[in-house]
Amino acid sequence: MKKDLESQQLALRLWRQLYRTYTLLKQCEDQVIEEYELTTEQYAVLVSISYLGEPSRITDIARWLERSTNSISMIIDRMVKGGLVKRARDKRDRRVVYVSKTSKAESLLGPANIAMFGRMLEILSPIPDKDRLTLLNLLREVGYGTMKCVKPGVDIEKAKRDEAKQAAGIAKWLSEYSKPFAPRTKHQGGEKGKTGKKTR
Amino acid sequence: MKKDLESQQLALRLWRQLYRTYTLLKQCEDQVIEEYELTTEQYAVLVSISYLGEPSRITDIARWLERSTNSISMIIDRMVKGGLVKRARDKRDRRVVYVSKTSKAESLLGPANIAMFGRMLEILSPIPDKDRLTLLNLLREVGYGTMKCVKPGVDIEKAKRDEAKQAAGIAKWLSEYSKPFAPRTKHQGGEKGKTGKKTR
Repeated sequence: MKKDLESQQLALRLWRQLYRTYTLLKQCEDQVIEEYELTTEQYAVLVSISYLGEPSRITDIARWLERSTNSISMIIDRMVKGGLVKRARDKRDRRVVYVSKTSKAESLLGPANIAMFGRMLEILSPIPDKDRLTLLNLLREVGYGTMKCVKPGVDIEKAKRDEAKQAAGIAKWLSEYSKPFAPRTKHQGGEKGKTGKKTR
Repeated sequence: MKKDLESQQLALRLWRQLYRTYTLLKQCEDQVIEEYELTTEQYAVLVSISYLGEPSRITDIARWLERSTNSISMIIDRMVKGGLVKRARDKRDRRVVYVSKTSKAESLLGPANIAMFGRMLEILSPIPDKDRLTLLNLLREVGYGTMKCVKPGVDIEKAKRDEAKQAAGIAKWLSEYSKPFAPRTKHQGGEKGKTGKKTR
């Protein structure tokens, strides 16, 4: 019984820490991104388009961001007005909406990515690759468990295949972006000035 | 160079997985909590008040939830109107606002906690305690790194002490609530019907 209580305590602390870590990461992202005339939501949409390739379907962006198509459509409405993305309908199937980045968005996204990625490497720098992998895999486990709760009957094996594809997409995206990140590959300071506007 | 690229890929995948896992957990929480006439934000405020003890200061609730005092004040305004919390000012220092739960909130919070905690144990059930602890500690590492970025000059040692206090608060809270959770302590199904309204 005592052991069960300890196990439950651990579960609660873990739950809270997941919330806490995410909230902190979100604050960090907000801090970095607000310097580039973008909201973090808009930034996330632009990053998804980069990963997915242009033009991207709104449904794919929504899936990539684990959000509803409706909420992504609303964000994209504002981004069209703000001159960040262009929207086009599929000629054969008018229900399908494609989105691509404008040159204005491209010019903001480049430096924003460098700053964001630099910050991310800085935050993760004390964590060796071995532990990063452990953390990734444990988070995936929690993710699968949650998926089963949120969408009963979900095909976890398909989700795993999708993730593998996404990992390949990330690798491709990174190899294109890797040049500007090169100075930071030691995961340490000393080159901070090159990775973002505001370098603390 | 190749190794650096791999390490960066891992960092990016980890970053994405943190976002993804949190988004899924949030969806799960929304699903569970919406059955109790509460939003997840309101639920989080009520849980904080339980942890912190009544009456709680708005500033302490905000700190517990890693949110700004302003945003918590706004949530609490709506909760006062909805009859979920009562607000009182400190007699000696009128700037300090205390909040306590109404009996309506208490009657919703009890079953909501049981359902939420049951769901949480279900999600974490495939993860043994040893791995839960590893995950908790790695998430804390990421949290500290992020804290340093978000609030330069932050006292990490103080944050660690605060966390230890919070863990003690969680243990105390759980020992009070542990009776209704007892049937689920094996972290497995079979007793699902007792832990919430909707048992998927």
